[in-house]
Amino acid sequence: MRFLQATVVSRHCAALKGLAYPRNYATIAEPAAPAVKTQAIPGPRSLELKGKLSAIQNVVPVQLFADYEKSIGNYLVDVDGNVLLDVYTQISSIPLGYNHPRLLNVFQNEKNLKTLINRPALGVFPGKEWPEQLNSILTKIAPKGLSNLTTMMCGSCSNENAYKNIFIWYRRNQRGENVDFTDAEMQSCMINQPPGAPKLSILSFNGAFHGRTLGALSTTHSKYIHKIDVPSFDWPIASFPQYQYPLAENERHNKEQDQRCLAEVEELIEKYNKKGIPVAGIIVEPIQSEGGDNEASPEFFQGLQKIGKQRGVALLIDEVQTGGGCTGKIWCHEHFNLDGPPDVVTFSKKMQLGGYFHKEEFKPQQGYRVFNTWMGDPSKLLLLQEVINVIQEENLLKNVNIAGKVLKDGLLDLEKEYSHILNSTRGRGTFLAVNCQNGKARDDIVNRLRMKGIQTGGCGEISIRFRPALTFQEKHANIVLDVFRSVLREL
Amino acid sequence: MRFLQATVVSRHCAALKGLAYPRNYATIAEPAAPAVKTQAIPGPRSLELKGKLSAIQNVVPVQLFADYEKSIGNYLVDVDGNVLLDVYTQISSIPLGYNHPRLLNVFQNEKNLKTLINRPALGVFPGKEWPEQLNSILTKIAPKGLSNLTTMMCGSCSNENAYKNIFIWYRRNQRGENVDFTDAEMQSCMINQPPGAPKLSILSFNGAFHGRTLGALSTTHSKYIHKIDVPSFDWPIASFPQYQYPLAENERHNKEQDQRCLAEVEELIEKYNKKGIPVAGIIVEPIQSEGGDNEASPEFFQGLQKIGKQRGVALLIDEVQTGGGCTGKIWCHEHFNLDGPPDVVTFSKKMQLGGYFHKEEFKPQQGYRVFNTWMGDPSKLLLLQEVINVIQEENLLKNVNIAGKVLKDGLLDLEKEYSHILNSTRGRGTFLAVNCQNGKARDDIVNRLRMKGIQTGGCGEISIRFRPALTFQEKHANIVLDVFRSVLREL
Repeated sequence: MRFLQATVVSRHCAALKGLAYPRNYATIAEPAAPAVKTQAIPGPRSLELKGKLSAIQNVVPVQLFADYEKSIGNYLVDVDGNVLLDVYTQISSIPLGYNHPRLLNVFQNEKNLKTLINRPALGVFPGKEWPEQLNSILTKIAPKGLSNLTTMMCGSCSNENAYKNIFIWYRRNQRGENVDFTDAEMQSCMINQPPGAPKLSILSFNGAFHGRTLGALSTTHSKYIHKIDVPSFDWPIASFPQYQYPLAENERHNKEQDQRCLAEVEELIEKYNKKGIPVAGIIVEPIQSEGGDNEASPEFFQGLQKIGKQRGVALLIDEVQTGGGCTGKIWCHEHFNLDGPPDVVTFSKKMQLGGYFHKEEFKPQQGYRVFNTWMGDPSKLLLLQEVINVIQEENLLKNVNIAGKVLKDGLLDLEKEYSHILNSTRGRGTFLAVNCQNGKARDDIVNRLRMKGIQTGGCGEISIRFRPALTFQEKHANIVLDVFRSVLREL
Repeated sequence: MRFLQATVVSRHCAALKGLAYPRNYATIAEPAAPAVKTQAIPGPRSLELKGKLSAIQNVVPVQLFADYEKSIGNYLVDVDGNVLLDVYTQISSIPLGYNHPRLLNVFQNEKNLKTLINRPALGVFPGKEWPEQLNSILTKIAPKGLSNLTTMMCGSCSNENAYKNIFIWYRRNQRGENVDFTDAEMQSCMINQPPGAPKLSILSFNGAFHGRTLGALSTTHSKYIHKIDVPSFDWPIASFPQYQYPLAENERHNKEQDQRCLAEVEELIEKYNKKGIPVAGIIVEPIQSEGGDNEASPEFFQGLQKIGKQRGVALLIDEVQTGGGCTGKIWCHEHFNLDGPPDVVTFSKKMQLGGYFHKEEFKPQQGYRVFNTWMGDPSKLLLLQEVINVIQEENLLKNVNIAGKVLKDGLLDLEKEYSHILNSTRGRGTFLAVNCQNGKARDDIVNRLRMKGIQTGGCGEISIRFRPALTFQEKHANIVLDVFRSVLREL
């Protein structure tokens, strides 16, 4: 096994020497295979650090302490020297693997370094490059038909601010174009009361995850531990289709699921309108990720869009986890053949910063309505630009489709062979999942995989999720499958 | 006027050549004075860029487009070549001025560069340096008695997550230590209903600003344009003291203000308890910033803390704008001689990233309750560490107190001389404000100051706020005062 050397260099020359890194991904010196050295993960050194951290924070979710200097490509190296093939990638947030040379190069550029250090209040004093930077993102990856882009910091605040954009749009539609706010509205909003702070809602789905701040959390329904003890808005929650697998053998059941859930959406819109909490927007993930990799058909999403259009309700597609190429397209909803773009599309994670694309008609007409001090981070946008360049130059969407097919076909094979243990393999690109018999069995398999060098993640109650980087290749898929088979043999 | 040269260097050598920068702040080649070259600000080049950006976003708040390569020290340079002495510093978020050599050096270090590129999910796979990094922040700047630190991304999400921490703590106090959640709680929270999603509230103050996501916005009451059309929680809002100046001549009035507002806090706690929306926490700024630089006395804050302790309500002090040294102490509430620390202190802006310090008893006992993908950003913490080093090594708190006294004394002189235009000079350190006769007059003065090379900001309805960097010196204060006098002479 060979790593890039963590050369001891003089502080002043480190960045220069850094450029000895290979520029092309294919030449990165990844380990040939994972290697686990400790009897358990977390190993002794991780446990020691966990003890230290526990004096400062709750550390229950900490799985290990990583060595990010040594981690490379698809391999995460921990402080105990364990080398894990990472198919979870920091909860699906690392686009090009660890220490990608192209990203290490971004801040070798003096201009970019100054962008990193001089962080502006983008809404008031943007830098001279900002319009062109946003434009490059819009040109290269915006969902077709969405011409506006608002940058934020993370997934939760992207959804929160998208909700505000939707509420503003909805009230303008009610009030009429160019109609001023009333005195009653301006006064009542200051004390959190209608009509200025109106009773409006965002419809979400059972099993959804849209973030953890109080507005976003009111649309999140994946696990009780995220929500318990936190006050919430009374907003409508519809059922999400629960498919049976294989899809080809369960068409009738699955179609009924679509129809039942769409009917429920319509009923809830009626119900909440009558209740005096009108639905201004619908938020939905293209694949419910945290909630268990629950898929729905293109027809379901087409139906949702139709309902939204008919009822003057905005459709927000949350691509925080699905966006950025891991489903084989930049945006998962591109698989759905929608009748025009969704109204709003939020992103974060692999995109390096948060934000959302939206239709021109959702742009607030007054200033300071969707606003905060930073409004994103231009240095993260520089990283995103380079990520997009690499995706395009190295044809990584094609890579995702090829590697994803190998992994999915292999999982389907394992599922047939070990049908008493695994079922319901599903997903697009490398964004894949498989179900276990129950939560305990799932946790056991995730642990066994890790102890054999494969870092996966759980989602929902019984699923294992695969979230490799876009640089995950066929050879990596084969390693995952071989290890998975050896785990299944042990059970 | 001499700038650091934006030398055209080969990409590979830029970082190395960057190290020709002087290492000590005092030697930075700042311009000797501001210089305005255009007939208006925004100038023609800024207007052109504003036109381009308006195709993508609402641009009403954009004041100018900056050239962050040329900006240096306390001087902001715009794309039209205007050189402004910046006493607003990106809404108070730039601690050491522009292009501080020590910050430019942070990512010359290979290890730090890798921290920047390999952004972890800190709650699950923290890097090996993370406990020590948090510990260094705790050791060097934590409010005395607050041993826990949770990092976040921005001010809004820091407050949102602090509210969650407070709700969790409050419910644990109600439920009893080590009492399990009930089935009813676990089920009802998933559909946003009590008892799992309880009706609890955070008490805030008129004129407060605590952020713009839906939970934070429910505690923000500074301007209607921030809140209108956005649904809100029905949470209690108390009056904030409205002082008259000079303080020494208005002791009785101001003391009555304190007493009236504290009594209102107690009444509202009673009222909302009876209403079935118990108050779990009180959030307050040490100086209401966005709302108009409204101060309250140490006795007021001591009184608030006492009420909180008596009633089992947490006290959260929001130091997002006041924190980081600009009041002459790292935390403004250090001026208040409180009886022990507040329960929670939130920060962001000058601190480079968001987060909060809190008492050990506020640490959730279960994992995943205060959690998200990123949980902050270690690369921003590296910048914060260096900011703290510079503050300590260059004795910048002393500098703030010296420069602040010059600026405040000068404003008090101007206020006496032009009492028909200015009044109510107030503040601590360089965190200062002065009132104008009305909003129109204020906006006019802010514009005239800018056209003579001084970038300030408005706050509240009639105030001008001064928010220079910690490196703002006596000589800068004198420039501000000279220009201010010349503006006042014109009126």
